[in-house]
Amino acid sequence: MELLNQTINNIKDLDSKMMKKSRERVDNLIKPIGSLGKLEDILIQLCGITGKLYPKVDNKAVIVMAADHGVFEESVASTPQEVTYIQTLNFARGVTGVCALAKQNNTKVIPVDIGVIRDIDSSKVINKKIRYGTANMTKGPAMTRDEAIKAIEVGIEIAQQEIDNGINLLATGEMGIANTTASTAVLSVLASLDPKTIVGVGANLPVASLPTKVNAIKKAIDINNPDPLDPIDVLHKVGGLDIAGMTGVMLAGAANRVPVVIDGTIATVSAIIASKIAPKSLKYFFPSHASADKSGYAASTILGLEPMLHMNMRLGEGSGAVLAFNIIESSTFMNKEMITFEEAGISL
Amino acid sequence: MELLNQTINNIKDLDSKMMKKSRERVDNLIKPIGSLGKLEDILIQLCGITGKLYPKVDNKAVIVMAADHGVFEESVASTPQEVTYIQTLNFARGVTGVCALAKQNNTKVIPVDIGVIRDIDSSKVINKKIRYGTANMTKGPAMTRDEAIKAIEVGIEIAQQEIDNGINLLATGEMGIANTTASTAVLSVLASLDPKTIVGVGANLPVASLPTKVNAIKKAIDINNPDPLDPIDVLHKVGGLDIAGMTGVMLAGAANRVPVVIDGTIATVSAIIASKIAPKSLKYFFPSHASADKSGYAASTILGLEPMLHMNMRLGEGSGAVLAFNIIESSTFMNKEMITFEEAGISL
Repeated sequence: MELLNQTINNIKDLDSKMMKKSRERVDNLIKPIGSLGKLEDILIQLCGITGKLYPKVDNKAVIVMAADHGVFEESVASTPQEVTYIQTLNFARGVTGVCALAKQNNTKVIPVDIGVIRDIDSSKVINKKIRYGTANMTKGPAMTRDEAIKAIEVGIEIAQQEIDNGINLLATGEMGIANTTASTAVLSVLASLDPKTIVGVGANLPVASLPTKVNAIKKAIDINNPDPLDPIDVLHKVGGLDIAGMTGVMLAGAANRVPVVIDGTIATVSAIIASKIAPKSLKYFFPSHASADKSGYAASTILGLEPMLHMNMRLGEGSGAVLAFNIIESSTFMNKEMITFEEAGISL
Repeated sequence: MELLNQTINNIKDLDSKMMKKSRERVDNLIKPIGSLGKLEDILIQLCGITGKLYPKVDNKAVIVMAADHGVFEESVASTPQEVTYIQTLNFARGVTGVCALAKQNNTKVIPVDIGVIRDIDSSKVINKKIRYGTANMTKGPAMTRDEAIKAIEVGIEIAQQEIDNGINLLATGEMGIANTTASTAVLSVLASLDPKTIVGVGANLPVASLPTKVNAIKKAIDINNPDPLDPIDVLHKVGGLDIAGMTGVMLAGAANRVPVVIDGTIATVSAIIASKIAPKSLKYFFPSHASADKSGYAASTILGLEPMLHMNMRLGEGSGAVLAFNIIESSTFMNKEMITFEEAGISL
């Protein structure tokens, strides 16, 4: 709890003076004012985050939290539970979706076992297992409050280590069969939304099985009665270890003035939790893509960050966030490679 | 005309067998079927374009057509006309918006003087000047039919040369003060739309001046009476040299089975012309961003290509297309770096 509290206390406002200075510079670059749209906004936010007029985001990492979910027992997913384990090893081998996209832009992929039900035998997966999967949340809390806090702190620790090693742009990813069930439950409680209206098919759950997923979420909420005003209460009762770990990464990014890119459904729910725990953290986050999953879309809307990419993607793993890294990095190229009207000898 | 006809004749259907083969492979990669959305579609289209199961798009160029527009006289732009000349030199210096974004993903920028009103003294700008700017289209045709065809053929020649030198992913850009007036006129005729409903502010024309822009477009259409069923008639009467040159690049890409990425307003109008001249060419084009300019949005809708990026950008120069290069390239990384379920030992 101490690490979490410390981290929360370290999250400060953006550097508004630097943002003003950056806006002045951007408005003087040789282009019609405002014509580079979100690229301009991204750059100015980066300046506010880092306190620098020429921020760099050239050292990129995605931290992938892998964990199992006890609610899998309720037939809420069509993928075998074993896939969490197999894919965690595949992150280490560099052969999953996010790994492929990460190679395109020289991004480091850091897989973390924060709660897979089997032991992971790979030196390339960071072992921070809190427990062997969560409990079935339809029968009681998914984990204890202490475990949820520990899982957040795992995220903080790992992000801190990467930042200390020079990472200046972070994203979070996840792997956990049934984790859209948990994240939709959290979203449902925090945003007071009927699960029926926001539940999606996740990893291709047949539409005919959606009512089963809705019922599991409702049952979990009913039996646990999470307090919507206490995000950690919600997280430990109907959330997941992956969700908690990602929340920690986001808070650590904000505390260290390092931008964090949000992926789809599950990461967006983690970002909502982070912004409830520490409201100032939201300014350190960048959206990436508009998830094709129904709950992802709802989460995005609630978070209020307008995605830059419309790719109909819904893989998770941090794949959409890594795709957005290029765009965010492009804004820094706009900043350092374009000249001003004055330098160009144009007076308007 | 011979080069244009030859090029049109060389535009064939996509390789549907290769697309089927690619779809099978993509559906077997370790991810829920369809979960990488447009990345999957992009890859499969690339396979159809190139006829290869592992297409490469690692050698990228944006061809920027610079030209002046006689309609500038009608007060349709708030930027001085001289800016076309200045910026054409700035492309050669590598300091404009598209140049900055091109550096981020190692893209070659090829500026072409296809009709700037002043002579360009730079060895880094390809001199293919057809004439010193178009004529004022509110008083007669912007150029002759022959000039329009020659301008298309300039685009074909330059693209052909780049493709012969190994470029495997193309985009088009433009620089020409008042060119949104010309492109909106073309769009208006080809799509039978009232200019008033599609005219945008271009490079920050004050909203109060929009009626002036609308009137100039209407006057140009009235006086020239372009035939909506003859795209070259429309192009030479109310179009521009930059628009024609970009059309040529697009046709050459299609004829050589090289993908071409479409930028915003003006490039999208060029793509509409290309697809009217050679309907099969459309399958060789990729959209990029949803332009913040009103006419760009309309053009996108008519072309029927759904943009991947929502960046509120409206700079032109090919900037949005170059930003999309990373995404298109990412699809090839998905293809070659991810393993299949079988290779992963997962049976579903």
